[in-house]
Amino acid sequence: MDVDLPRDLDPEVRADLVAREKAYCQGLQKAGTWVHIWRCVGQYANLSVFDVEDNEELHRVLWNLPLFPYMTIDVTPLARHPSDLAADDAGA
Amino acid sequence: MDVDLPRDLDPEVRADLVAREKAYCQGLQKAGTWVHIWRCVGQYANLSVFDVEDNEELHRVLWNLPLFPYMTIDVTPLARHPSDLAADDAGA
Amino acid sequence: MDVDLPRDLDPEVRADLVAREKAYCQGLQKAGTWVHIWRCVGQYANLSVFDVEDNEELHRVLWNLPLFPYMTIDVTPLARHPSDLAADDAGA
Amino acid sequence: MDVDLPRDLDPEVRADLVAREKAYCQGLQKAGTWVHIWRCVGQYANLSVFDVEDNEELHRVLWNLPLFPYMTIDVTPLARHPSDLAADDAGA
Amino acid sequence: MDVDLPRDLDPEVRADLVAREKAYCQGLQKAGTWVHIWRCVGQYANLSVFDVEDNEELHRVLWNLPLFPYMTIDVTPLARHPSDLAADDAGA
Amino acid sequence: MDVDLPRDLDPEVRADLVAREKAYCQGLQKAGTWVHIWRCVGQYANLSVFDVEDNEELHRVLWNLPLFPYMTIDVTPLARHPSDLAADDAGA
Amino acid sequence: MDVDLPRDLDPEVRADLVAREKAYCQGLQKAGTWVHIWRCVGQYANLSVFDVEDNEELHRVLWNLPLFPYMTIDVTPLARHPSDLAADDAGA
Amino acid sequence: MDVDLPRDLDPEVRADLVAREKAYCQGLQKAGTWVHIWRCVGQYANLSVFDVEDNEELHRVLWNLPLFPYMTIDVTPLARHPSDLAADDAGA
Amino acid sequence: MDVDLPRDLDPEVRADLVAREKAYCQGLQKAGTWVHIWRCVGQYANLSVFDVEDNEELHRVLWNLPLFPYMTIDVTPLARHPSDLAADDAGA
Amino acid sequence: MDVDLPRDLDPEVRADLVAREKAYCQGLQKAGTWVHIWRCVGQYANLSVFDVEDNEELHRVLWNLPLFPYMTIDVTPLARHPSDLAADDAGA
Repeated sequence: MDVDLPRDLDPEVRADLVAREKAYCQGLQKAGTWVHIWRCVGQYANLSVFDVEDNEELHRVLWNLPLFPYMTIDVTPLARHPSDLAADDAGA
Repeated sequence: MDVDLPRDLDPEVRADLVAREKAYCQGLQKAGTWVHIWRCVGQYANLSVFDVEDNEELHRVLWNLPLFPYMTIDVTPLARHPSDLAADDAGA
Repeated sequence: MDVDLPRDLDPEVRADLVAREKAYCQGLQKAGTWVHIWRCVGQYANLSVFDVEDNEELHRVLWNLPLFPYMTIDVTPLARHPSDLAADDAGA
Repeated sequence: MDVDLPRDLDPEVRADLVAREKAYCQGLQKAGTWVHIWRCVGQYANLSVFDVEDNEELHRVLWNLPLFPYMTIDVTPLARHPSDLAADDAGA
Repeated sequence: MDVDLPRDLDPEVRADLVAREKAYCQGLQKAGTWVHIWRCVGQYANLSVFDVEDNEELHRVLWNLPLFPYMTIDVTPLARHPSDLAADDAGA
Repeated sequence: MDVDLPRDLDPEVRADLVAREKAYCQGLQKAGTWVHIWRCVGQYANLSVFDVEDNEELHRVLWNLPLFPYMTIDVTPLARHPSDLAADDAGA
Repeated sequence: MDVDLPRDLDPEVRADLVAREKAYCQGLQKAGTWVHIWRCVGQYANLSVFDVEDNEELHRVLWNLPLFPYMTIDVTPLARHPSDLAADDAGA
Repeated sequence: MDVDLPRDLDPEVRADLVAREKAYCQGLQKAGTWVHIWRCVGQYANLSVFDVEDNEELHRVLWNLPLFPYMTIDVTPLARHPSDLAADDAGA
Repeated sequence: MDVDLPRDLDPEVRADLVAREKAYCQGLQKAGTWVHIWRCVGQYANLSVFDVEDNEELHRVLWNLPLFPYMTIDVTPLARHPSDLAADDAGA
Repeated sequence: MDVDLPRDLDPEVRADLVAREKAYCQGLQKAGTWVHIWRCVGQYANLSVFDVEDNEELHRVLWNLPLFPYMTIDVTPLARHPSDLAADDAGA
């Protein structure tokens, strides 16, 4: 997920967007949907792992991101790996 | 990490390689170095997260993969994300 | 799904592979898992739509394709479109 | 079909465009021309299948999309697959 | 249409293939299906225009090219251009 | 030749540009320079074949297109194909 | 690190940005963090090598670059090469 | 060297830029630094060969191009070819 | 023009090929057809400029290169640049 | 510089190649030509900086690498950066 905030964005609008994004992200972490989030070093981008029921839920989660209109998102479907010791349930 | 095993590989050599890869991977999981591994759906490939001291250690871990000569590997350095609730120590 | 059968493949092995692929594909069509399959014009490739429970099932379906070792597969997760009149359940 | 609506588009113009797009799309679904439409998860994009007489008709259909000026479209010609059980007539 | 004939191909097999390709191509030119063929300068490749009934016919024409197993083919659907004086019927 | 007219272009300027482009194109068709023009389906783009004396003439023709400042152009040099029955003189 | 300063940037703002970037860069050179910086010939871009404790520090260094909002950055993790005579400690 | 002059550039500013670019280019031709310049057919771009002392001089020459802020430049280092009859000294 | 000689090529065949290529190249230099040839630094590749009558001649020249079956060739049509002091006639 | 040693290479030939490569590399380090070499983490590849008189020398250095026939090399010309405190003479 790459973020590209326009540089002429009003500072207040920007601060509000970023704050809402953080709250939204942490709400989904508490709910167990947003399983992992890492910062990609040197980029305004992250690598995230979601645990969702199906594609409908994943699209709803992403579409409602406050920063969605400014993002480029690549989705890679993941499944459990046969060598994985931790039989966790991480989804897409 | 994409794997491309030659199709004319001797079946015994192949089985041995895959078994050694699995043992190597699970040993590093137990040691806490290989933090996550997921299968990329529909591909002989995985997405993994490692927690290492430095670049030297990461290179040593990857270079010694039994399947290393058959792999194409992209490394994306990751850091903690400011929105991450779980202050875990996952590294590169 | 692009298929690249080696040109020096034994003709009998090839015929057997292609026949097993077709049977496998049609079995999954009858089961409602392989919802659509089209030929990409001018290419040994197809565009397919699957309706699966989750990523685990999709990976199992693709991994067991008789032609899997000869294929390059791109997976695009799909969801229902808000403009879609037919509220079908087609998945990934 | 990727959609890239300018973020500074007047909200009323935008709402009108999206509503006209939906009506246009559903009219073609009823006419049997727009056979399938799926949402690409995490993107303002869709994957669609059309059943048209010829290239002239397909171009007319796409060119007249209310959102056409904001879209990037890739067209992949499709034909019936020899393994397809359902002898449907889906076209391009 | 790029052609990549293996360099270790038996010279007789190669000569036979190329001769059959030429006969096939010229038969379709006489039938009015293969409307144009140009050589791409400096490449073992051509740019061709076909006039076909539908995608099924185009796929059949391409799939049966004697050199098909050695080719990489990109298909670009074409339609009449509004500025075209010659109202010809060239198809895909 | 892809065309990308800015969406905020004055409608009169735009109509004038498109009309001049059409006249220019048809003048060159009558002169035998612009041998073929096809619409690429679903795109504001065309595929054209020119018959010119040399590179100087081709550049002059393209540079003077009324829509040139809005175009992205790829030039593929073409030559007669040895399988071509119609010994036409189509150039670059 | 590619830099893309908008051409309509206020000249004073631009001069201030570039001066602060230079000071920031030279401060990190004195601290031994920014080990190398070269200009890529013919481009507003550089190739740099950093010696950092971990990914967190590298991200902090890059994120705080005065020109960060105008940059596109690719990070390639580096390790000591077995043929390197100078056993230096250059990091990422 | 691709040139992308903004279409809303003031016509006088544009004419001045282009005139200064031409004078700069011809001055370097007379000095023997700018050895060759060709127009890429159908594009606002050129292919040039420079004969310079070192990378520092080449960067200075390119950085000072009046159109530099509007250009995308790829530099390919060249050396004498063993088959070259003319033992000229063309550099980068 | 990139050259990719198979590494298992018989050394005598290879030496013969390379010698014939050099003779062919120098013959065309003397004839004024092969105007420039430079080595791309660090690659088994060259950058060449040809002065030919038309596309037919250029294709004949390239197709008959002894190393043609091992080459990947990109052709960029060139024309005189309006800033070029030397009104030479270099062609494609 | 990416290295792709064929997996069926005779182990003795391979060991000899790698040893000669290392000796060659360290000889050039001592001579001050091969200024830096780093391992790209997780890849059989390195990032190197050379200090050479001109393009001729750089090409000679690279062309004579024992592993040259197995390498893919990208050359990026570098120059001193205006922010560089260490006025070193690192070249290409």
